[in-house]
Amino acid sequence: MSVYASLKEEAWAANMEIPARGLALYTWGNVSAFDPAKGVFAIKPSGVPYPELKAEDMVVVDMEGKVVEGKLNPSSDTPTHRVLYREFSVADGAKIGGIIHTHSTHATAWAQACRPIPLFGTTHADHIQTPVPCAPYLSKEAVERDYETETGNLIVKAFREGIPGQCGPMNPKEVTMVLVGGHGPFVWGETAVKAVYNGAVLEETARMALLTLQANPAAAPLPAYIVDKHYLRKHGPNAYYGQGGAH
Amino acid sequence: MSVYASLKEEAWAANMEIPARGLALYTWGNVSAFDPAKGVFAIKPSGVPYPELKAEDMVVVDMEGKVVEGKLNPSSDTPTHRVLYREFSVADGAKIGGIIHTHSTHATAWAQACRPIPLFGTTHADHIQTPVPCAPYLSKEAVERDYETETGNLIVKAFREGIPGQCGPMNPKEVTMVLVGGHGPFVWGETAVKAVYNGAVLEETARMALLTLQANPAAAPLPAYIVDKHYLRKHGPNAYYGQGGAH
Amino acid sequence: MSVYASLKEEAWAANMEIPARGLALYTWGNVSAFDPAKGVFAIKPSGVPYPELKAEDMVVVDMEGKVVEGKLNPSSDTPTHRVLYREFSVADGAKIGGIIHTHSTHATAWAQACRPIPLFGTTHADHIQTPVPCAPYLSKEAVERDYETETGNLIVKAFREGIPGQCGPMNPKEVTMVLVGGHGPFVWGETAVKAVYNGAVLEETARMALLTLQANPAAAPLPAYIVDKHYLRKHGPNAYYGQGGAH
Amino acid sequence: MSVYASLKEEAWAANMEIPARGLALYTWGNVSAFDPAKGVFAIKPSGVPYPELKAEDMVVVDMEGKVVEGKLNPSSDTPTHRVLYREFSVADGAKIGGIIHTHSTHATAWAQACRPIPLFGTTHADHIQTPVPCAPYLSKEAVERDYETETGNLIVKAFREGIPGQCGPMNPKEVTMVLVGGHGPFVWGETAVKAVYNGAVLEETARMALLTLQANPAAAPLPAYIVDKHYLRKHGPNAYYGQGGAH
Repeated sequence: MSVYASLKEEAWAANMEIPARGLALYTWGNVSAFDPAKGVFAIKPSGVPYPELKAEDMVVVDMEGKVVEGKLNPSSDTPTHRVLYREFSVADGAKIGGIIHTHSTHATAWAQACRPIPLFGTTHADHIQTPVPCAPYLSKEAVERDYETETGNLIVKAFREGIPGQCGPMNPKEVTMVLVGGHGPFVWGETAVKAVYNGAVLEETARMALLTLQANPAAAPLPAYIVDKHYLRKHGPNAYYGQGGAH
Repeated sequence: MSVYASLKEEAWAANMEIPARGLALYTWGNVSAFDPAKGVFAIKPSGVPYPELKAEDMVVVDMEGKVVEGKLNPSSDTPTHRVLYREFSVADGAKIGGIIHTHSTHATAWAQACRPIPLFGTTHADHIQTPVPCAPYLSKEAVERDYETETGNLIVKAFREGIPGQCGPMNPKEVTMVLVGGHGPFVWGETAVKAVYNGAVLEETARMALLTLQANPAAAPLPAYIVDKHYLRKHGPNAYYGQGGAH
Repeated sequence: MSVYASLKEEAWAANMEIPARGLALYTWGNVSAFDPAKGVFAIKPSGVPYPELKAEDMVVVDMEGKVVEGKLNPSSDTPTHRVLYREFSVADGAKIGGIIHTHSTHATAWAQACRPIPLFGTTHADHIQTPVPCAPYLSKEAVERDYETETGNLIVKAFREGIPGQCGPMNPKEVTMVLVGGHGPFVWGETAVKAVYNGAVLEETARMALLTLQANPAAAPLPAYIVDKHYLRKHGPNAYYGQGGAH
Repeated sequence: MSVYASLKEEAWAANMEIPARGLALYTWGNVSAFDPAKGVFAIKPSGVPYPELKAEDMVVVDMEGKVVEGKLNPSSDTPTHRVLYREFSVADGAKIGGIIHTHSTHATAWAQACRPIPLFGTTHADHIQTPVPCAPYLSKEAVERDYETETGNLIVKAFREGIPGQCGPMNPKEVTMVLVGGHGPFVWGETAVKAVYNGAVLEETARMALLTLQANPAAAPLPAYIVDKHYLRKHGPNAYYGQGGAH
């Protein structure tokens, strides 16, 4: 039995949540699960329909991008996942155990609009304390150099340096989601399943924000003191939502 | 067998309607059922997913906020429910047997827009005779003092004193729903199941109102004489909708 | 066995299509089936949830509005159905075997907006050759006199005399649907099931029209020669859609 | 056993994807499957509801429009399919094995708006490298001459000569979808099932584009270098999406 069996099982179970939550059509979207001790992640194979997907199909990739187990090609977005684990988890020490990329409808609409998602309410603030950032289009040079790796680099740069005209540096431990302009969302979490949860939260938040602007095109952002209260109800040492333990 | 068994069963059944009616994702949303004779209500435990929820998991809380039965933490919104039962049901004598709080998509969009939902048609007027009120953001002081209790106080104040620039005092026996600005809806009814029904009505009303404004940004409110006719078809001594008895 | 058994069965089956097609929440909406030879129609009882509804619960009502069979109260909208059968079917000779009233979301939004639904495309033209008319609000006097009967009279007047600022007289044999301002749609067809079909068509047409205006706020109506071609592909002596016989 | 059995089976399976993917109500929509060697295509019979549809009901039609097998009337849109196979597949040598026509909601909204669907993001660019073209209304003369054949001619002319004010000539091997103004989409693919896939992609792309304009009415088109990168990840000799072979 493979030493990666439970990691592959975790990645598979999280990938199966994509169609269950309506986050993608056909084969679109992918989730990976990371094992920091072994320095590898398991990810969906490219272009395989969800109904046919099995845990044993998951492809295990190391931090250099080498496939260490699996017969299928990994997701074409694998290099983006690799950069995010390497920089955010290994280098920065953020506890990231899973990453999801989808083209979920409303989040992608905001990405296509090249606009951050405003923080209008507590549904959003329960999960992150800032608007959902939107990284700019990749440059022509970056696209031609190594598209998927550079997508990862773009996200890392946005978090380390901030996004001009939008926000300063962000902490990937707290801001667990980002839009890539013209493309769609990348989202992470402490586990692969938590990453999918955050992806579903983002989609609902994106939808609510569009509807909020329909109800009031001049809608104001939620005051910071309510944002912080809601976020800290669920996160950090004084969290009191749920049944105790880390959410 | 617990003296609260039937109350917990009622609360559980009403909570299970939340996912069935599409009123919330994951563990979001909660319903409580009130027993005025015993002075207690049963409410959903915090952060428990609906598919795992059992009637015996419901937490029974008294009017002082003390847990009188149950091993799990009650919903973090419990103090809001408590204030509404204490003020509207016990103090004002409104027959309120259940309260629901959700982040249902369209109602929450109006809450995030800090706008009351205009009364555009008979679907709305069948249930309440006014726009759905939207209470303002809680103040910084109130949030820091005791967020959930103050959310209840905010609602009670809105009903007793009216909402500046929006409406005068309201009767919780007739206006069974309210939006809290930047947050979402709180809704009640004669029973917990009726509260959920009212919550679903609010969500549909909120959706229709947004679409109405798309069709006609200058849409007019429904004339008062049609509002009253529709409301009184279903409510009060001369109601003639349904099979007799109280609606 | 009741002489009305098959009429009640037909009305029941058509009513059960309301939740199946997503045309109403809870107990909202009602369909009736008309037997012109017997001069009666079978209609849904008031306020009975669809999952509990049985064919034997249908209420049979005659042209004077008298219940001739059934133990339950008929739909509160029964007088509206009665007026439409009496005027359009009996008096005008239109072959109307069924009527549906719902609060389907998008059609109701247009009704609340007090706007006719523009004829933008062939999906609409396959079914009617004009915008979907929207009758104005009922007058205060009419509401106070006999609300449901007057709703029927309002529709009949709109068809016989036209709607000021909107359209001239219409033929109920061809225009099988109407919005009542501030309320919702009334739709008919040669059978009760065909009426529900037309109700579902209306809902989809209403949705598409809203989305069309989003894509192009200055969208033009479909040219008349395309409207007529599409309508006549499906209706009249030269129809060639389907497998022969009347559409 | 019929020599066309497998072609009819393929057409049937693809047609059954229409309701499964939510691309049409009732009997709306049709898919055909083409056999270039035999010079025939199998298409849905007109007006038959999907739940009753059987593979043996498919109608086989040759390049002159003659029914060569089948007892039912073929879809009224059959002449449009015939023109597209004859011109794009036989004459131009595009590998088109299937065509789908639906009135899917959001794609039809753009068609009714007479607007091409802007290329806002990579979800769109993964499939075609241009906006989704929108052919103008058919002329009165064309409608009166032979509506369905002329719809095919209109599409062929748009691809061979371009659409004034919108785009130059297009290659049907690469641009696999088109809107017909005031009507709806026609979409093709290498197989009938791939055509339905492209139809579902179009519907999602159309929906995302409307939402993008809501988020940012001045949204910019995706830069060409990102469009090309995404398209070529999935198409052509250097494609690297999926498990090898032609996508």
